[in-house]
Amino acid sequence: MNADLGTPGTPRLIALDWGTSSLRAFLLADGAAIVAQRHADHGILRLPPPGGRAGFERAFADVVGPWLARRPDLPVVACGMVGSAQGWEQAPYVDCPVDVRALAAHATRVVTLSGATLWLAPGARFDPAAAAPDVMRGEEIQVAGALDGQAHWEKRCCFVLPGTHSKWAQVEQGRITGFATYMTGELYAVLREHSILGRLMPAAAVAGAAGVQRSRAQDEAFDAGLQAAGLHPPAALAHQLFAVRTLGLTGRLSSEALGDYLSGLLIGHEVAAGLADLDRPGAGAAPVVLVGEPALCQRYDRALALQGARAAARLDNTAPRGLWAFARALGLPLGLLKAD
Amino acid sequence: MNADLGTPGTPRLIALDWGTSSLRAFLLADGAAIVAQRHADHGILRLPPPGGRAGFERAFADVVGPWLARRPDLPVVACGMVGSAQGWEQAPYVDCPVDVRALAAHATRVVTLSGATLWLAPGARFDPAAAAPDVMRGEEIQVAGALDGQAHWEKRCCFVLPGTHSKWAQVEQGRITGFATYMTGELYAVLREHSILGRLMPAAAVAGAAGVQRSRAQDEAFDAGLQAAGLHPPAALAHQLFAVRTLGLTGRLSSEALGDYLSGLLIGHEVAAGLADLDRPGAGAAPVVLVGEPALCQRYDRALALQGARAAARLDNTAPRGLWAFARALGLPLGLLKAD
Repeated sequence: MNADLGTPGTPRLIALDWGTSSLRAFLLADGAAIVAQRHADHGILRLPPPGGRAGFERAFADVVGPWLARRPDLPVVACGMVGSAQGWEQAPYVDCPVDVRALAAHATRVVTLSGATLWLAPGARFDPAAAAPDVMRGEEIQVAGALDGQAHWEKRCCFVLPGTHSKWAQVEQGRITGFATYMTGELYAVLREHSILGRLMPAAAVAGAAGVQRSRAQDEAFDAGLQAAGLHPPAALAHQLFAVRTLGLTGRLSSEALGDYLSGLLIGHEVAAGLADLDRPGAGAAPVVLVGEPALCQRYDRALALQGARAAARLDNTAPRGLWAFARALGLPLGLLKAD
Repeated sequence: MNADLGTPGTPRLIALDWGTSSLRAFLLADGAAIVAQRHADHGILRLPPPGGRAGFERAFADVVGPWLARRPDLPVVACGMVGSAQGWEQAPYVDCPVDVRALAAHATRVVTLSGATLWLAPGARFDPAAAAPDVMRGEEIQVAGALDGQAHWEKRCCFVLPGTHSKWAQVEQGRITGFATYMTGELYAVLREHSILGRLMPAAAVAGAAGVQRSRAQDEAFDAGLQAAGLHPPAALAHQLFAVRTLGLTGRLSSEALGDYLSGLLIGHEVAAGLADLDRPGAGAAPVVLVGEPALCQRYDRALALQGARAAARLDNTAPRGLWAFARALGLPLGLLKAD
């Protein structure tokens, strides 16, 4: 029954990327092709009233309900903070090495009030003997999406996922063997909004904001920050940050460019440390693949270039494909619709 | 006329340490002995209404007026942000190398509405060719106070002044030849109050707060942060900070100890970088002297010890003695009272 395999564009899966501040829902067809998508501000810290379990139910019904009303047979999967201790149900972390099969083996099942079943992907934990543990939730699915069908990266590569809490994930033989979090995006935000470094910056100019035309001075300031961060031996970040103030006080950087210098310092320090970690003795060269929002990946690409490296690829959001791979690993009936 | 030389305890100088958040006033006798002191919240960002020049006048009259009413002949000197661009009058930065004579040569004179004369010490600037400029305001006077009468430190030493913006100041032949700022204290405050790292910490337990009994778990967490920061090669701060969250999430540190781990990480990174800077090729060993609030200096002493160094001395507030040295360098009549 060929009809069971569906035609291009026939919805097969509802996939949710449900984080702290937003909920992104994708209606996926064969090959993780996006048929439709919806976006809501109902991140797990911004649920509709009354919050809690009822808030999750209501957000789910608002965003996914219309799709399920037409296709109640579609399976539903989710990744991100929805599976955290503050989430709908907890899907405890799975220790490295981890791949999409391990994630599926530890998925948590939620049955909604409407009777739908939602499969939550667990996060991943890396717990090295010599350092503090590290965790991710959502990025492990993005990595699964980036790897899906990419045999040349499965053997060995490093995925860099820039963001509030950037992740550098090492992959060997198709599994995440270890990773490191850098609080780069959050440091940028809190220093800009709450420290003395933001005082000389204009409120309007958000570095990298969509739709804002960047000036040459901003590009140069970003590069100058990257270069300062790439010194050998590296200078201390807590010292170099103060230059954001002194370069502004002395008029050597314009106020509109200070945010870019700060961004360059922070991203540059992250990239220098990430590359140094890749260069450790015994480790062969691994291709570096950037995954995430294109404007941010472009900044990281520039940082890599100024430190003598390059990105093997830049990928936009790979979460839908990762959720598709997760659903497949769960054994959900993606191609076998009920005969109705 | 011996009476002109005064007796022990006879006031000779009014010395003001006037910073961003507070104004500390000292009535000093021979040898910078403190006869009396007053403290007000009238830092330059917290002036009494209406602020501005009138706010400075009013704060000055409130705090210093009673002393001047009795002894209008006393000279008045001040250091700190009162001489900044946002201060009463600007006393522009003096470039390194700088000593108390250079500060006196570039002092700015303010005549108050009441007719008193106030001498403002300039700040110091270090502007190396290979890095961004650095600035200090107030610490250069603390260094002058620490050096006053200390010939054995004048030749060569490093003063470490911990705080919101810690300073590591190199002294050679009695002059500050260079220095570096570390935003350690401000990073601690903004990360604790505004980042995800503060979420797992109790609001009440302010690390190092006076009067709070510290637990053994807190001491151990502080040491653990110092040790993580002292790794060779050093790990990236933006990565290690995330451990404050993961050690809390996994229960490996109690919530009351997380602030101490954060403090240890930040102070440890500062001390590692400061010591590495002292160890640069061609530089001989310089004694390290801690200057500042005793509980904070104790933390830095511990950080130095865990990284194989030690402080040659720990000094409490040296600003009064530094202001005394500044007044002497200005040629003010510290020992020659008017015959009245």
